[in-house]
Amino acid sequence: MKPYVEMSKEELTAEYEALKASYQSYVDRHLSLNMARGKPGSDQLDLSRGMLDVINSASDLTASDGTDARNYGCLDGLPEAKKLLGDMMDSDPEDVIVYGNSSLNIMYDQIARSYTFGVMGNTPWCQLDGPVKWLCPVPGYDRHFGITEFFGIEMINIPMHEDGPDMDAVEAFVKDPAVKGIWCVPKYSNPGGVVYSDEVIDRFAHLQPAAKDFRIYWDNAYCIHHLYEEIDIPDILKACKEAGHPDLVYKFGSTSKITFPGAGIAALATSPNNKKDILNQMKHQTIGHDKLNQLRHVRFFGDLNGLKEHMKKHADLIRPKFEAVEKTLNEQLGGLEVGTWTNPKGGYFISFTGLDGTAQEIVAKMKEAGVVMTGAGATYPYHKDPHDSNIRIAPTLPPLDEIALAAEIFATVVKLVSAEKLLAQK
Amino acid sequence: MKPYVEMSKEELTAEYEALKASYQSYVDRHLSLNMARGKPGSDQLDLSRGMLDVINSASDLTASDGTDARNYGCLDGLPEAKKLLGDMMDSDPEDVIVYGNSSLNIMYDQIARSYTFGVMGNTPWCQLDGPVKWLCPVPGYDRHFGITEFFGIEMINIPMHEDGPDMDAVEAFVKDPAVKGIWCVPKYSNPGGVVYSDEVIDRFAHLQPAAKDFRIYWDNAYCIHHLYEEIDIPDILKACKEAGHPDLVYKFGSTSKITFPGAGIAALATSPNNKKDILNQMKHQTIGHDKLNQLRHVRFFGDLNGLKEHMKKHADLIRPKFEAVEKTLNEQLGGLEVGTWTNPKGGYFISFTGLDGTAQEIVAKMKEAGVVMTGAGATYPYHKDPHDSNIRIAPTLPPLDEIALAAEIFATVVKLVSAEKLLAQK
Repeated sequence: MKPYVEMSKEELTAEYEALKASYQSYVDRHLSLNMARGKPGSDQLDLSRGMLDVINSASDLTASDGTDARNYGCLDGLPEAKKLLGDMMDSDPEDVIVYGNSSLNIMYDQIARSYTFGVMGNTPWCQLDGPVKWLCPVPGYDRHFGITEFFGIEMINIPMHEDGPDMDAVEAFVKDPAVKGIWCVPKYSNPGGVVYSDEVIDRFAHLQPAAKDFRIYWDNAYCIHHLYEEIDIPDILKACKEAGHPDLVYKFGSTSKITFPGAGIAALATSPNNKKDILNQMKHQTIGHDKLNQLRHVRFFGDLNGLKEHMKKHADLIRPKFEAVEKTLNEQLGGLEVGTWTNPKGGYFISFTGLDGTAQEIVAKMKEAGVVMTGAGATYPYHKDPHDSNIRIAPTLPPLDEIALAAEIFATVVKLVSAEKLLAQK
Repeated sequence: MKPYVEMSKEELTAEYEALKASYQSYVDRHLSLNMARGKPGSDQLDLSRGMLDVINSASDLTASDGTDARNYGCLDGLPEAKKLLGDMMDSDPEDVIVYGNSSLNIMYDQIARSYTFGVMGNTPWCQLDGPVKWLCPVPGYDRHFGITEFFGIEMINIPMHEDGPDMDAVEAFVKDPAVKGIWCVPKYSNPGGVVYSDEVIDRFAHLQPAAKDFRIYWDNAYCIHHLYEEIDIPDILKACKEAGHPDLVYKFGSTSKITFPGAGIAALATSPNNKKDILNQMKHQTIGHDKLNQLRHVRFFGDLNGLKEHMKKHADLIRPKFEAVEKTLNEQLGGLEVGTWTNPKGGYFISFTGLDGTAQEIVAKMKEAGVVMTGAGATYPYHKDPHDSNIRIAPTLPPLDEIALAAEIFATVVKLVSAEKLLAQK
C-alpha cells in the first residue's frame, strides 16, 4: 500500500471507512488487554520459583563473613550479595551498597538526601535560591521524571539519538551550576531501546559540570536483559575514574526483572567518597536491609554466569512477544509513513512514534477497544510530549496470543487516527 | 550490707580495695561479652525458621485479592498482611500501610517527607523560619533521637514517670507551634520498660497542639512483647478519633523482634486523611514493598493468635535472662543505695540509674573488662545525659550463662565506681 499522504482524498476516505469498521469489530469484542507497564509475565516469574527453596528452615543462614543474616546489621549488604550485584553491574564489590527491593526507591532517597542534606558537603538543594535543574533525555522513563517533578526540580528535555543523549546539549547545559543531575538508562533505554555508544559514554565520563554536586544517575536497569546476543558497554564508573572524575556517577541496578519485581534486591555502585557520604546519611534511616533475600539471590544464582543463564530463559519467553509486535507493525504499517518504531535488542519496551498530534488519540481509542497502553505523554517530563507523537509499547506481560491481538488492534488504531488526521488536512 | 553513703571512710576504703581486686580478676579473664543492643538471640531467631518453608517453589503465590505477590504493585500492602499487622497493632486493616523490613525507616521517611513536602498541605518544615522542635521523653531510644538530630530538629527532654511521659510538660510544650512531634514507645518503653497508663493515653488523645501538623510518633515496637502475662493499653488511634483528633497520630510496628530483625515486615497505621497524604507522596518513591515476605508472614502465623503463641516462646527464652540480671542486681546492689533499676514486664531492656556522674565511667570500665554496653548518654538527645547516671542494659542477645556473668561484672563495676566517687567526696 502507498503512503497515506500520497493517497487521494477518495482513496484515504475509503481506507478510513474500512478502518472504522475494523476498529468497531474490535470494540465489539469487549477485550481487556494491557500493554501499559514493563511487568514480567507470570511465565517469567515462574523461572525464579526455585529461589524460594534455596533458603529454608534447614539452611545455614550465616554469611561468608560470619554475619547471621537473620539479625540486625550490615548496612551496605552481605559481602556475597555485593559481589553478585557488583559483577552484574561491572563494579568492585567494595563500591556497592545492596538495598531492599527497589532501585527506584534508592534513586528517590538519593535525591531526597541531596535535597535535604546535600551531596558530599555541598549546599542542600532545599537551601539554594533558584530551582534545581535536571537533564532528561527524551523519550524517557516516567517514574524517573515523576521523582524529579515531585521535588520541584526543573526538567530540561535532551534529545535522544540512536547512540544516546545529544551530548552537545548535555555538555552545554551542565555549564549551568543549577543543573545537578541527568537521568540515564544507558542500555536498552526505556522506552527507545537505545544502547549508548562508547563515544557517548566517554563524553559522559569527561563532563565538566559547573556544579560540584552534579551526578549522573546511571540507571542500568537492563544491563543483562538481552533479547539476542550479549551487548556490552564500557563501565561508566571506571571511565569516570580514568577521566579523573571518580565521584561523577551513581550507578543503579536491581534484580526486579530478573527474579521478582516485588521481591528482588537492588543496588547502587559508586566511588568510595560517594559511598561513604551515602552511608553516613543512610545509617540514620535504617539498620540494614533484608539480608535473607540477599542470601536467597546469591544461593540461587551462584555467580554472574548463573545470572546470565537465567536471563537467556527470560529472553526465550519475551523475544517472541517483541517479534510478534514488530512483525505486525511491519506488515500493517510498513510503507504507510504513519509512524516509526524501534526494534530493541534488549530491555522491556518498543517505542512508537506516530504522526504529530496523534498519540493521545491513539491511546484513547486503544482504551475504548479494551487495550490499556502507557498514557500518551508519559515518556516526557510533565507528561508533555511536544509533538504528541510518542507511545511506549510494553509487550512482556500478556501471553503471546494476547500481545499479537493487541498489536493488530494497535496497528488498526494508528491507521485510523492517522487517516482521520490526514483527511482533516485535505 | 549498709548503704555506701553511711559507711565510714575506712569501711568504704576497704570495700573499694576489695572491689578493685575483684574487678581486676574479671579484666584478667579477657572476656568478650555484649549487652549493647536490643538484638534477639539466635535461639529466638530459630523460632521463626519454619517461616522460610511456608513459601516455596510449589506455593500458590496469589494473594486474597488476586494480586500476584511476585510482581509489581500493591503500594499499601497485601490485604491479608494489612489484616495481620492491623490486628497486632489494634487497627483496622484499612488504616494500615505495610512496608519493608524496618519501622525505623518508616519513621525516618515520614519525617523526611514532612521536612520536604509538608504534612497534609501544611508548610514543609524546611521552609519554616525557625527550627522545628520535638518532644523526647527521656530516657528514650537512641535511634529515634538520631533521626530528629540528623534533621536538625531541636529536641526537648520530657521527664518519664512510671505511667508515661510527664503530660503537664507535654501539654505545655505543644502550645508552641514550632513543636511538631513527640517520640513515644507506649508499651515496655525503651529503655525504661514503662507502660503508659490509660490516663496518659487519654491526655495524649486530647492534646491541643498549636501546630496543625503536630503528630504523635507512636512507636509500639513491643506491643505483643510480653515477658509475663499480656498487658493491654488503650488504642491511641481510636482514642484520638473519639477525642475528635483522628489525624493526631502515626502508629508504627514491625515483626523485627517477632520473626527476623533483618527480614521482618513493618507497618504504619493512621487515619484515612493521613494515609491518603502518605500514599500520595510515597507513590513517587516506590512501586511497592516485598509482598512475598508479607505472604510468608501471613502464612506462618495465620492470625493474631498465631502471633501471640509465637511471642510466648520468645518470652520463655528471654525471661530467664531478664530475671538473671535482676537477681544479680538485687543480690549485689540491694540496700547499697548506689543505683535503681527497672523490672520490666516486657520489651527488650532494663534501665539502670546510678549515682550522678558515674554512667560514663561504669560503661568505660565495663568495656575494659570486655563487656560492651550501650554508650552512656545514648538514652538522651544529643547523647547528653544531664546527670550522667542512666545506662541501658540489653540482656537478650548473649546466652544465659554469659548474661549472668556480665551482670555480675556490671554489679561489681557499679559498686567500684560508686565507692570511688563517694570516697572522693569524703
